[in-house]
Order: sequence, then structure tokens, then C-alpha cells
Amino acid sequence: MADLQAIVDEIHDKLAPRLGEGKVADYIPQLAHVDPKKFGMAIVTVDGEIFKVGDADVPFSIQSISKVFTLTLALGKHGETTWNRVGREPSGSAFNSIVQLEHEEGKPRNPFINAGAIAVSDLVLAGHTPREAIGEIVRFVRYLADDDSIAIDPTVAKSEQATGYRNFALANFMRSFGKLDHPVEHVLGVYFHHCALAMTCTQLAKSGLFLAASGRNPLTGHTVVSKQRARRINALMLTCGHYDGSGDFAYRVGLPGKSGVGGGILAVAPGRASVAVWSPGLNHNGNSLLGSLALEMLTTRTGWSVFGH
Amino acid sequence: MADLQAIVDEIHDKLAPRLGEGKVADYIPQLAHVDPKKFGMAIVTVDGEIFKVGDADVPFSIQSISKVFTLTLALGKHGETTWNRVGREPSGSAFNSIVQLEHEEGKPRNPFINAGAIAVSDLVLAGHTPREAIGEIVRFVRYLADDDSIAIDPTVAKSEQATGYRNFALANFMRSFGKLDHPVEHVLGVYFHHCALAMTCTQLAKSGLFLAASGRNPLTGHTVVSKQRARRINALMLTCGHYDGSGDFAYRVGLPGKSGVGGGILAVAPGRASVAVWSPGLNHNGNSLLGSLALEMLTTRTGWSVFGH
Amino acid sequence: MADLQAIVDEIHDKLAPRLGEGKVADYIPQLAHVDPKKFGMAIVTVDGEIFKVGDADVPFSIQSISKVFTLTLALGKHGETTWNRVGREPSGSAFNSIVQLEHEEGKPRNPFINAGAIAVSDLVLAGHTPREAIGEIVRFVRYLADDDSIAIDPTVAKSEQATGYRNFALANFMRSFGKLDHPVEHVLGVYFHHCALAMTCTQLAKSGLFLAASGRNPLTGHTVVSKQRARRINALMLTCGHYDGSGDFAYRVGLPGKSGVGGGILAVAPGRASVAVWSPGLNHNGNSLLGSLALEMLTTRTGWSVFGH
Amino acid sequence: MADLQAIVDEIHDKLAPRLGEGKVADYIPQLAHVDPKKFGMAIVTVDGEIFKVGDADVPFSIQSISKVFTLTLALGKHGETTWNRVGREPSGSAFNSIVQLEHEEGKPRNPFINAGAIAVSDLVLAGHTPREAIGEIVRFVRYLADDDSIAIDPTVAKSEQATGYRNFALANFMRSFGKLDHPVEHVLGVYFHHCALAMTCTQLAKSGLFLAASGRNPLTGHTVVSKQRARRINALMLTCGHYDGSGDFAYRVGLPGKSGVGGGILAVAPGRASVAVWSPGLNHNGNSLLGSLALEMLTTRTGWSVFGH
Repeated sequence: MADLQAIVDEIHDKLAPRLGEGKVADYIPQLAHVDPKKFGMAIVTVDGEIFKVGDADVPFSIQSISKVFTLTLALGKHGETTWNRVGREPSGSAFNSIVQLEHEEGKPRNPFINAGAIAVSDLVLAGHTPREAIGEIVRFVRYLADDDSIAIDPTVAKSEQATGYRNFALANFMRSFGKLDHPVEHVLGVYFHHCALAMTCTQLAKSGLFLAASGRNPLTGHTVVSKQRARRINALMLTCGHYDGSGDFAYRVGLPGKSGVGGGILAVAPGRASVAVWSPGLNHNGNSLLGSLALEMLTTRTGWSVFGH
Repeated sequence: MADLQAIVDEIHDKLAPRLGEGKVADYIPQLAHVDPKKFGMAIVTVDGEIFKVGDADVPFSIQSISKVFTLTLALGKHGETTWNRVGREPSGSAFNSIVQLEHEEGKPRNPFINAGAIAVSDLVLAGHTPREAIGEIVRFVRYLADDDSIAIDPTVAKSEQATGYRNFALANFMRSFGKLDHPVEHVLGVYFHHCALAMTCTQLAKSGLFLAASGRNPLTGHTVVSKQRARRINALMLTCGHYDGSGDFAYRVGLPGKSGVGGGILAVAPGRASVAVWSPGLNHNGNSLLGSLALEMLTTRTGWSVFGH
Repeated sequence: MADLQAIVDEIHDKLAPRLGEGKVADYIPQLAHVDPKKFGMAIVTVDGEIFKVGDADVPFSIQSISKVFTLTLALGKHGETTWNRVGREPSGSAFNSIVQLEHEEGKPRNPFINAGAIAVSDLVLAGHTPREAIGEIVRFVRYLADDDSIAIDPTVAKSEQATGYRNFALANFMRSFGKLDHPVEHVLGVYFHHCALAMTCTQLAKSGLFLAASGRNPLTGHTVVSKQRARRINALMLTCGHYDGSGDFAYRVGLPGKSGVGGGILAVAPGRASVAVWSPGLNHNGNSLLGSLALEMLTTRTGWSVFGH
Repeated sequence: MADLQAIVDEIHDKLAPRLGEGKVADYIPQLAHVDPKKFGMAIVTVDGEIFKVGDADVPFSIQSISKVFTLTLALGKHGETTWNRVGREPSGSAFNSIVQLEHEEGKPRNPFINAGAIAVSDLVLAGHTPREAIGEIVRFVRYLADDDSIAIDPTVAKSEQATGYRNFALANFMRSFGKLDHPVEHVLGVYFHHCALAMTCTQLAKSGLFLAASGRNPLTGHTVVSKQRARRINALMLTCGHYDGSGDFAYRVGLPGKSGVGGGILAVAPGRASVAVWSPGLNHNGNSLLGSLALEMLTTRTGWSVFGH
């Protein structure tokens, strides 16, 4: 597998002249101040090998990538009844998100758009305090990555809480349809905190490895979910993981993946590896521009696309 | 691979008591009069082996499954510029289809919803007469399946032409945005005819085999498309192939697939096989109810899901 | 009432330097070729006096103003059951028209948006041929204006027929919901022809006089509709007569009115007069820019607003 | 004018057997517990005469009728720049309200839908504390009605604050587009309080009298607004005052009016009178069922419709 190191090095080299492309998210200062030329990539194979390049060990705000972990937790607590609260269909354009929320009486289309992840936060709360739920999420991600240094950046969480009007709108809207069990402030407290998790590419790739390995983390030996559930979470990532760019990501990259506005992407090559990439500049759909490109180069070179060689 | 025959037999046995479930499409008499208890399934592996059960050699109206073949033709003629006329993102609910068409100024979301397939028919026309374009499509499908007996059912085509008001609405709407090059009647002439192709499960599975085998049909040795294009068509089938049930199909079955209101589904297991199933009763999303279930049973037993074992 | 002549003369003088402002409708050559500096205005009082200025006796394409006459005819044939086919609520933005048509299963919001007027054409047909229905409409308008020289411009009708894709889309869409009784081509034949009526301001003001005079045309002595129906048609013109500028027209002018893309507006001052104005340049809502202004000046000077002195 | 007393008595008699029809608003206990058989009506003419019947002096929650008063205040503070923050077009169906809010980037369609009235509350705040703004609104309504006993029901205000999730959603949504100047909690504090004003029909009719009398309250001699502004507020009430039943109210009643979910309606007959009616049962558009009917009977008998005799 010396190959893979050569491949990530080559990807890094090819993209080096383009570092800084795309638009860094600027709606909160903590995201806006990141160096736009950062680039990191880490691959952890199901055999436990790790390949990395660039800023793979620099922590960044994982933002919406965390929705994969909270969904996994919610499914653990509520099983298939989770789907009474949130759908699993792609959402169409950003424009339609709130339209569809109204059309479907407060039931979000899928767990990876904001409304859906807010519904998932409500499910994770399950009668606990926000502090307890946030603690549970952090412990779960540390367990997945086998790394107790992972933590939430409180400044990011606070900043989102102060300016997240659209999320307050979505949560209140769902509440008006009776689709949240807990107070809006509690649910959003959980939501803003899990989005503020800071992780490195290496930690992130390790955390997602169970999805590439039929539900079991080969690094720790822990079975996280059943084989079937791992497949199903991968399916959701593929159809819904990149907002209104999900179809394009499937078309170009061909892997289940989940992006965050911090510029990170977690991608899963079933049976092969978990991959994390980070480059802060975003494309017009809000997904990492060079991160998507790096993953496209990776699947082109490795033949890891789930859609054929 | 004696296995596979046992698996399809078992699927057939298990579903036998449920034959007739679902709602047969009834908007034209030719679809309504089909026997709701029909059930057929055919698997053609990349090694050329064929496994079948039930009514696998009874022809049925493939309807929207034909959109996979016209897209392949359009990509052959126009390459990536095809995407100037049609997007490749999932469309959200049926309700939204015409809304989004208006919002995106006459550019359909993807080639598998009706509006998108109409745009593709326009691209296939490419200056020819409808008769010529229809002839080209039929020849292409015969070539894919290596079977010259495949033909269009003219009664079905005529019937759709007489009652397809919604499709006339969509085509005129796109034309009002200047998004069709040919007269509405010509474009819909092509569209209604390719949807009226009558094929058996066996023929259909053979026709889709190139998508499972990196673009080359191993039965005939013909290279139909490049490896990359085969992957990309599979990606589109997975994200957009089942209307507003695409996410659910990915979640349950885990294979690229395309359904038709005639009750057929073509599914692709990359590197493994092409599968066609037929059962006329539809679920609430307009996809074959037992056909979807049969494919879910198949991937559960074979581990063929693209999302892991 | 020498007053009124002074008022229309003053309006004409004040607007003279601005003639040519606005955007002339250009979707068919017959509308695009009109002289943008044309301006006419005619007032016919309930006492039978006529005041006019500028090009008040030059015929122009009345377009959507004709919808007032076809609605009156449909109400005569079908009474209040007319409202089973078309609503009487303002439609919101143009953007929403087709959205709402879908949301309300093919029932247009009101008789003055295109979809609604198409539904009204279907009601006017009432089993007759398009030729008969068109003949009936022309005779009705001649009767209202007491002027047998009024006619349809066949070039305009033909041109709209050749390019009215959006209207074909709307009609087919309604047909798909079973909301039209006659073939789409027949319904649109009627629709395109009545929109192509050519009339002068004087003729138009006379035709609308029955609405200002409790349903009876004081020039001819003919009772056209009941008092109640006259009031109700006026109410519809006020709430829905200017597309997405209806609220603004009510706010500024304060009279029931109906505009057409040919640059005409018919306004009704109940108990006082019927007014027609023509200036081809349109504002961003598709209503005559200077025509609206002329009417605003008229109600400011006369105190004719229905909303108080 | 002995007539008018006979007319309101007759209306009362005719409706007596139907008292209790319609659906009482039940989203907060204070509205749900009202006696559904209450019915009151008060007419105050521009000559200062008062005619009343039934429970015309029993206070009820005026709810959205208060939006007429806050709009008047906002126009006094901000003049025509008010329209930079809120439109003046009818909104189409309830379904579309939030869609259009998204489509128009947080600018509500008109000041009488909830989103628009929230924007108006923001304008009334104008840098003051919620307490100050609420005080100003109460003083203004007392001044209009010349009655210092008018007050807010604090239980109703509190109850709406505790359950008004949809309004919190709308306000946060507008805030996310930068369309509110003050904190969401302050704006909604003002909004929930003015909606909780408790008034009798008599007080309400007096408060609206300035709109019937060219901007000047003939009972007190105070000029509240200019003639033009009075006309314009009336125009807005006519096109937008009854949510998605505005067209129907104009069609049947023919007067500018504003309804509230408490079952009240304030209607204005320009040059003649101000009318208030109260009957708690609502129709499917959320407007008082018998209240609308009472006003329809009134205009039929009096010929007060603005659309003709």
C-alpha cells in the first residue's frame, strides 16, 4: 500500500498551486479567520494503515460532518423509529428546504440538512439536559476515533448560538408543528455544540472507519453498529451528504461522504478505507472546493468509486 | 454460482403469497390491463451467466427505465455539454418538480424525472425527424441487449400521446424558457415512443449489463461507454433513479437502479451483475412494490450493496 | 363637467415629456412594433358624457382587459358555479402562479391571471366550437360598446398561438387535473382570439360603463348584469386586476381596474364613470407605467377613489 | 338614520339561530374559553351616531385587527420608507407565506400577514424598549377611541409568547436576512402585546372611524392621518385584510376590513361609517364566519359597498 502514500502526495502536489481557491465561510469570525491555504488529507484503511499529507494533524471545525455521528447515536437510541421524525430523501435545492419543511408539516427531508440534524439533536437529547447530551456526543466521537483529546471549541459554539437565526427559525418552525420534544433552546444548544467539534483529518478518518468496515472499527475492535446499519448510513451520506451538490459529488467522486462548512469532508470507501480531507475554500454549494477535487483524484487513481472501476 | 439460482427461486417463493400487492398504474388502458400477479426476475452476471425466475421472458412496458438508454445516447452525442440542458441533482418531491423547473428557468433537475427525460429526447433528436430518432433508440437498445426482437408497443405510445397532458405541460413550459430546440410535438413524439418500449426482464438485464461491467457488454464484447461514463450513469441512477423514493431505495437496496411505472426495475451491481425485476403493483412513490422488495432480498443475501457487505 | 376635460388635458400635458417610458411588450412582433409614445385616455360618465385626449380613438390590442368581458359572459352562462373552476383570490407573485396551480390541483386562483382566464374560456365554450365562442365574445363586446366596428386582429391571435408556450403549458397542466372540458387547442383558440381584440380607449370605456352604473349601460339602456354582479366584478378587478401589482394599484389609484400587456387599462369609478387609458410602456409588473400614473392623477384630482375623498 | 338601528337589529335576529357556528380559535386557552354564542355589532357613522346590538360592549381579544393601528403608527414614524421593509401586495395562500418570505429575502408581502405585522412591530420599536413601544400603542388606540379604559390582556400576551413558535420562526427567519433592527424577543414582545388588546365593538368602531372620515376622527375632532393616507390604509385593508379570504370578503362584502382570530372584524365604509362586529366562530380562512355574514347583510341593505350600489 506504499501506493496510497504516493497517491496522497501526488494529490497534494497537484493541488498546491490552487490552495486558497473557493470562498471561506465567514458567517462567524471563528470560521472566517482560518488560513484559506490550509490543506490536509488522511486515509485510514480497514487494515489499519494510515496515510496522510499536509495539515492532516491540524484541528478544524468539523461542522456538519458531526451530523453523521449524531445520526449514528440517534439510531442507536431510537432504531428505525428515528425515521418518524426525519425522512431519508435528498432535499432538492437550498431554496426548497423551508418550503418542503412546510409542505411536509415540519418533518425534515433527511438528517443531513440543518432542519434534519436539529430533529436528530432532539432525538439525542431524549429527556436529558443539553449538557449531558453534549457530553455523550463528545464521548462517542472520542470512542470512535479512540482519541480522548477531541473537544468542542466553545467560542465557535457560542458564536453560532448568537447568530444562528436561520436555525432558530427552523427549530421554532418544527416546534410549531409539534415535531420537537424538547425546548428549542435545548435542542439548538446540542446542535450548535456538536457542530463546533474540532478535529484533525486523522481523527476524523479514524472516527468514520467503522462505516468502511461493516460497522466495526478495526483499529479498536469495537463493533459500533450492525453491518446493515453501516450500509444504510453510507447510503444516506451518498444521497444526501453534500446538500444540493450531493448528485454532483456522487457523479464525480462516487463515494458516500459528508461535508462541513469548515471545509472538511469525510468520505467512506466501503471495504477499503475512511478518508478525511480539509481545505477551507467552499464551492457554490457550500462544499470544500479542493477537498471535493482531492477525493475525485483519489477515486480516479484508486478505482474506489462504489459505482465501478 | 448455483447459489444465484437458489436465491432468485427463494425470492420468488417468498413473494408468491404477496403477488398482486401495490397499485397498478392505470392512467392508460394498456398499463391498467396487465395481470397484477405477474412477477419476473433475471440476473445476468458479468461472466455471462443468466439466472431467471417467473415471468422473466414476458415482455412488459419498460416506461421510464428507457431514460437510462436515452441518456446514454445523449451523452454519446453531446458529451458533458448535456449538462447544460439538464442537471444531475435529485429532485425532491414530485410536488416540487414543476416548482423547481420554474425556479431554475426551465432546466430540469436530472435526466430521470419526466422533464429531464423530455430534455434528453430533445438532445437525442439533434436535428433529425422523430421517426429517425425513435429508430435510433430502438436500434441502440437492440444492440445493447443483442436482441433484434425488441420493439415499441405502438398502442402504448399512442395512448400516452393522447392523454399525456402533464408531459405536454412540462414540454411547453421548457419551450417557453427556450430550453428545447425542437417542436414540442417532435420531442414528445420521441419521448412517448421510447417509454413504450416493450422488453422482458432477460432483455432488460442484458441491456444494462454494460453498466455493471465498466462500460463494456461482456456478452457481445462491445464497448458501449468509457469506464468513467459507466460509473457516472450508475451514480445518477442511484441518486435520482426512483423519483422521490431514490433515498429509500438506496437505503434499502443499495444499488443504482431505475424504475418504470410499468412495474419494472433495472438495477446494477457494479463488477457483478445486471438485474431486472418486474411486478406491476406500485408503491406510493410509483416504484414497483414487490420489485423493490425482491432487490432488497437479493442484496441482503448476496452482499452486493455498493455500500458494504 | 367641463372640469373633466380640463383634468384629462392636464394629465396629458404633464405626462407628455415622459411618453415612451417603460418597456413595450415584445414577445410578439405585433405588440413590439407599436409606437411607444402613443397615449390616449377616454372617460365616459354614467351621465353619458365623453371626455377624451390624445390617441383615444386609435385602436390597440386590449389583451388581458378582455378577461373582464369573458368573465362576464361566463357568469351569465354558469352563474356562481363558475367559481367551482376558478377562485377569486389574489394570486401572489408571478413566480407562484404555477406553483399554486399545482398546489390547488389545477384550479386557478382568479379569473384574471392567465390560467384563470383560460379556465374561463373553457366555460365560455360550453360545448360550442371555438369559432362560435369567439363570435359570441365579439358580439358581446360590440353590444357593450354599442359599436359594430370592433374586431379581433387575426395577426395578433395567430402570433400568440404560435409562441404562447407558457399558455399551452398552463392549459395542459389544468387538463392533466381534469379541469378543462374542451380540448386544449379549442380552449386556447378562444383565449388567444379574445386577447387579440383591438379597441380604442373610447370603445373600451363605453364597454366598461355597465360596471360603473350598477350593471346597466346608460348609453344604450341595456341591463347587462345585476347590480350585485356588477359590484362583484368590480371587487375582482380591484383585488386581482393587475397581477402582482394589484395591491399597489389599489394603494395608488383606488379604483377597480384591469390592465393588458398592450398598455391599456380599463378602470371603473362606481357611480361615476368608466375610464380607459393607453400607453404601451409597461412597469415591472407588466402594467402600463404611464397609464397607471394617469389614473393616479385622475383620482387625486377627482376624489374618485373608492377608498374615500 | 333610525334605519341603521333597524338594520342591525334585523341582522342580529336573522343570525340568532346560527350563533355558535364556525370554529373558535383554540391555540391558546384564553381564546378557546370564550362563549361561542357571543355576538356584537356596533356602527359609528361619520356624523357621530352610534348603533349597536347584542354584545357590542363586551370586550374581546382584537388580535390581528390591531395591525391596522400599528401600521398607522409605523407610517407616522417612517412615512413611505415603511414600504422598504414590508410590501403591499396580497399574499396568496397561507401555505405560501413562508415560501414567499424566502423568495423575497425576508421582506413580507404586506403588513397584515403575521410576518408583515412583525416587521411593523420592529418599525414601531424604533430604538425604544418593548415596554415603551407597547405603551405608545395602547395610548394611540385609547386616543383613537377616545377611551382610556382600553387595555391589553396580559394573560393572552403571555400565553401567545409561550406558544407562538410559528411567529418565533418567522421573526428569526427575517432576522437571518437582516430584515429586523431589534432583537427577536423585543420585536415579538411588542407584537404579542398589541395582538392582546381587549376592546369592545363600540370601542373598535370608534377607533377605526378616522379611516371612514378622510383621516379625521369626527367624534374628537383630531386629525389622525392625511386624507391620502386614510385612503391608502383602506386600500390595504381591502386587498390584504382577510388573509387568503381577502378576495372573497371584497366579493361578498365590498368594504375594507381587518379580521382577527378572536372573531372580530373592523370594516370601513368610506364617507359613511366605521363598523365593528364580533362572533368568535371562524370560517376556514380564519375569519369570523357570522361576522362576515353580518357585514354582507349590512352592505346589501345599505348599499355601502365601495364597488357600487
